[in-house]
Amino acid sequence: MKRAAWILLLAIPAAAWCSPAPSLASACTGCHGPEGAGSGIFPRIAGQPEVYLQKELEFFRSGARPSPMMQRVTKALNDADIAALAAYFSKLHPPYTSAAGALSAAQKIRGQQLATVGDWQHGVPGCVRCHGPGLNGVAPQIPALAGQSPQYVVSTLRLFQSMNMHAPHYFPVTIMGRVARGLSDADVQAVTGYIAQLKPGEIPQTSRPPHDAAYKFIAQSPDEFKPPPETAIPGGLDGEEIWRGRLIFEDTQRYARQYTGNTLNCSSCHLDRGRRANSAPMWAAYIAYPEYRSKNHKVNTLEERIQGCFRFSMNGTPPAADSPTMVALVSYFHWLATGLPVGITPKGAGYPKLPSPHTSPSIERGTAVYAANCAMCHGANGEGREARGTQIFPPLWGPHSFNWGAGMEQTSTAAAFIKANMPYGAGETLSDQQAWDVAAFVVSHPRPQDPRFTGSVATTRAKYHRTDSYYGRVVNGKLLGAPANSGE
Amino acid sequence: MKRAAWILLLAIPAAAWCSPAPSLASACTGCHGPEGAGSGIFPRIAGQPEVYLQKELEFFRSGARPSPMMQRVTKALNDADIAALAAYFSKLHPPYTSAAGALSAAQKIRGQQLATVGDWQHGVPGCVRCHGPGLNGVAPQIPALAGQSPQYVVSTLRLFQSMNMHAPHYFPVTIMGRVARGLSDADVQAVTGYIAQLKPGEIPQTSRPPHDAAYKFIAQSPDEFKPPPETAIPGGLDGEEIWRGRLIFEDTQRYARQYTGNTLNCSSCHLDRGRRANSAPMWAAYIAYPEYRSKNHKVNTLEERIQGCFRFSMNGTPPAADSPTMVALVSYFHWLATGLPVGITPKGAGYPKLPSPHTSPSIERGTAVYAANCAMCHGANGEGREARGTQIFPPLWGPHSFNWGAGMEQTSTAAAFIKANMPYGAGETLSDQQAWDVAAFVVSHPRPQDPRFTGSVATTRAKYHRTDSYYGRVVNGKLLGAPANSGE
Repeated sequence: MKRAAWILLLAIPAAAWCSPAPSLASACTGCHGPEGAGSGIFPRIAGQPEVYLQKELEFFRSGARPSPMMQRVTKALNDADIAALAAYFSKLHPPYTSAAGALSAAQKIRGQQLATVGDWQHGVPGCVRCHGPGLNGVAPQIPALAGQSPQYVVSTLRLFQSMNMHAPHYFPVTIMGRVARGLSDADVQAVTGYIAQLKPGEIPQTSRPPHDAAYKFIAQSPDEFKPPPETAIPGGLDGEEIWRGRLIFEDTQRYARQYTGNTLNCSSCHLDRGRRANSAPMWAAYIAYPEYRSKNHKVNTLEERIQGCFRFSMNGTPPAADSPTMVALVSYFHWLATGLPVGITPKGAGYPKLPSPHTSPSIERGTAVYAANCAMCHGANGEGREARGTQIFPPLWGPHSFNWGAGMEQTSTAAAFIKANMPYGAGETLSDQQAWDVAAFVVSHPRPQDPRFTGSVATTRAKYHRTDSYYGRVVNGKLLGAPANSGE
Repeated sequence: MKRAAWILLLAIPAAAWCSPAPSLASACTGCHGPEGAGSGIFPRIAGQPEVYLQKELEFFRSGARPSPMMQRVTKALNDADIAALAAYFSKLHPPYTSAAGALSAAQKIRGQQLATVGDWQHGVPGCVRCHGPGLNGVAPQIPALAGQSPQYVVSTLRLFQSMNMHAPHYFPVTIMGRVARGLSDADVQAVTGYIAQLKPGEIPQTSRPPHDAAYKFIAQSPDEFKPPPETAIPGGLDGEEIWRGRLIFEDTQRYARQYTGNTLNCSSCHLDRGRRANSAPMWAAYIAYPEYRSKNHKVNTLEERIQGCFRFSMNGTPPAADSPTMVALVSYFHWLATGLPVGITPKGAGYPKLPSPHTSPSIERGTAVYAANCAMCHGANGEGREARGTQIFPPLWGPHSFNWGAGMEQTSTAAAFIKANMPYGAGETLSDQQAWDVAAFVVSHPRPQDPRFTGSVATTRAKYHRTDSYYGRVVNGKLLGAPANSGE
C-alpha cells in the first residue's frame, strides 16, 4: 500500500472537492488503480452502479461497513463529494485486467455451482440470484462481481462472516452474513476463483451440470427430504425433459414467456428452483396432487394446479395440460420428488403457517419494515429489478406483479412466505410481527385485476376474497381491485 | 334323502329317456325340488346356462367332478339325455325359495367384499368377475350363484379345496381350487351367506365400502407394496373423485364408454382394479410417469400414457388430459400409490418379463392350450362374454378387441400377461411355453387396424411393428393388418 498517497489525500481540504474533479478522483485511483479499474485487494469500482458506490461510501463514512482505512478516507467527504465520486466512477469502463488464478477442475465446478445455483442446504443462494446474470450487477445497488479480484472478494466474505447479523446497521450483512457463513474455506476459494475468471459483460449459458453416473438413490426420511442433486438428472430424453422443466421453472420469462402476463418466474415464489423446504417446494406438491382445493371447489390435478399459477401468480394464459411446457414442468417435479412417498404431507410442504399476529398487521409499520429490508432489491415502489433482460427481483405490486387472484395476495400467505424466505437467503430474520406488517404493506397496493372479476368489486370480493385480502378495501383513498386502481 | 326315488330312477332303462320327458326330469326334481328350484344341499338347477348344465352332467358322468351320487345317476344317461335335460332345466324359472340365514353385519360386509371385489391378497377374485353382475351367471357356461343355498355352495367350495389343482380333468378347479383355498372358514360362511340372500335377477349397485376412519397409513417396503384398502378412501370431494376413478377403471364401458371403441375395461388388463402386482398395477405406473417411451419417442405424462390405453387397447378416442374422466383416473391412481416412493421401479410393476421360449411359440400348440384353458370364458372365437349389459370376459381378437397398436398385440407382452395372470385368478398355472404358445395363438388373429396405419401394411409394420408382432404377417392365408382382415 502506498502510504504516502493517503497522507497526501488527507491533507486536501474536503471543501475543495465539490465536483468529480480529477484531484478528488485521483485520491481513489491511488489505490483502486487508474480509472478505478481495481488492483489486488483494492476492488474495481469503475462501472459499478452509482447508487451502490454512493451508499457504500456513506456506510464506510458512518462506520456501518467497518474499514478503518475507508472510514478515514470517507470522513473527509461530504454528501456532495460522495455523490460526485459515485457518479464519476459508475460511468468509467476501463479495460479489465484479469486477476484470475489457476482453478482445478473440481474448483471450477464447485465455483460455478455456488455462483449459479448456490448450495441452499448450507444457506447459500446462487450469487447470480442477486448479482445478476454473469454477475454483472443489478442497478441501482447490487455490485458487479465478474472479474473482481479474488483477494478483495475473499476479504469481503471474511468481513461478512465476522459481522453481527442480528443488529446490522449495514443491510447487506443480513443476507451476505448468512451466505458467507455457509461457505467453507474451500468454497470461498472456489467461488472467488470462479468469479475472478468471469468475463465482465458476458453472460455464461446455463448448462447442465456434468452427469454423475455414480449417483445412487438413497431412501430418506420424508420429513428431512432433499431432492436429488442436479448431477443425478438421468441421461437420454428423460433427462432432457427434466432439464427443460428446470430451465422453465427457473427462468420462466425466457423459456415460457408466452404463458405469462407479468415478469415473474416460477422461482420467484418457489426458491432454489422449487427445491427448498418451506418455500412451497415442488416435490411436496408433486406427491400431493390430485387434491381437492377450496379455491375452485374441486379436485385439481397437478397440471391444473400449475395452470392456476400461470393464471394468477403469473397473470397469464396457462399452457394446456398436455403442452410441452407442462410436460417439462411435471417431469421436473416428478424427478425432484424421487423417493418421496406419494400422498403424504412431508415437513417443509407449502409455506409454514404463521401464528396469528399479536397486534393486527399494520400497513404503516410495514412501510418501515419494507424500506429497511426489501426496498434495496424490490424497489421503493415494489417495481422489482431487471438486469440484462432478466428479471432479478420480482415486482411485488403494480402492473407487472401477481394479480388479485394469486394466493400471495392474501396477507396470511404473504406473511408466511416472507417469514420463511425473505430477505432472500435470509429467511427467519424478521419477527413474526414484522412479517405480518410488511405483508400487509405489500398486499395493500394496486395490482392486476382478478381474472375471475365478476364486473363488480363488491361481488368479486364476496365470492373470492372473504379472507384477509385487501381486495375491495379502501387503502389510501383507493378502492383496491377497482378497474381504475388495478395497477395496469 | 329319498332313497326310494333313486332306486326307482335307476330301474328305468336309459334308452327310454330320449327327450326331456317329464319322467326323466322328475328323476332330477326328486332331489332338486319341483322344477329344479333347489332345496338344501341340492342346488337349484333351474335357469342355469344350458351348456353349464350339460357340461357338469358330463363331468359327473366321467367322474371328473367327483360325486358318487351324481356319478351313479348320470351313468345311466347318454349324450342325448344329458342334452335334453340341460335344455329343459335351463328354460325353467320357478320362484326362488330364499335359503338365506341370518348374517352378522361383519359377515355381510365381508361376504359382499368377497363377492364383488374379492381378496386378491389371498388369491380370491370377486365372484362377480366370472359369475356376472349380481352373480346371475354368464352364458354359456358359468352358473348363477344368486340365491343358491349355502349348504350346496359350502360343500362345493370344500370339494374344490380338496381337489388336485395341478392335474385337473375338471377345468373349473384350475380357478376355483385356487379361490376356495384362499377362503378361510369364516370367509366361506360369509360369502355363501351373502350369495344366498342375493335376489336372483337383480344387480346390486356397486357402492363404496364403509369408510374406516381408524385406518392409519403404514410405511411399507416398496417391493412388497399393497395399496390402501378401499375402506381408507378419504371423505369429501377427494374421496368422491377417487371413487369415481375406481368405478371408471373397473367398468369403463359403463362410466366412460364414449372414449372406448371396443368392449374392454381398464380392469381387463389390470386385474383387481389396478391393484394387483404383476398385472401392470396403477400404483407402479403412477410413480413412474412422466417417463420416456420408445413407443412414441418422447417423455409421456401419466395422462398421455392413459390416453395411449384408450387409443390402442380400448380402440377409442381418448379423453383430454384435463377431462373429468382423466382427473378421476389420475386421482384414483394417486391414491393407490399412497406411501410408495416416487420414481423407483418396485417389484410387481408391469407384467414380469417371461424368459425366451425354449422352442419358438407355436400357434398350433397354442390352439390346444386355448381350447383347454381359455375358451370357456373368452369363447372359442375369442369373442368374449357379456352378461346383462356388462362385458365379463373381454374379446381377445376380432372387431371388439384391442387394436394392432396396443402393447398386448406383441407376443412377448401377451405371454407375460398370460403367464402371470391367466386363467383369471389362477396365474402361474400355465408353463412358460404354454404361455408363449397361447399368446401366439391369440395375437395371430385379425383385430382392428393400428390407428397409426400409414396406408400400407408393409410400411406400418416397418415403422411400428419391428417386434414379435404378427402384424403384416400371413397367418392362415390372411395378411394380418390388411384392411380387409382387420376383424372389423
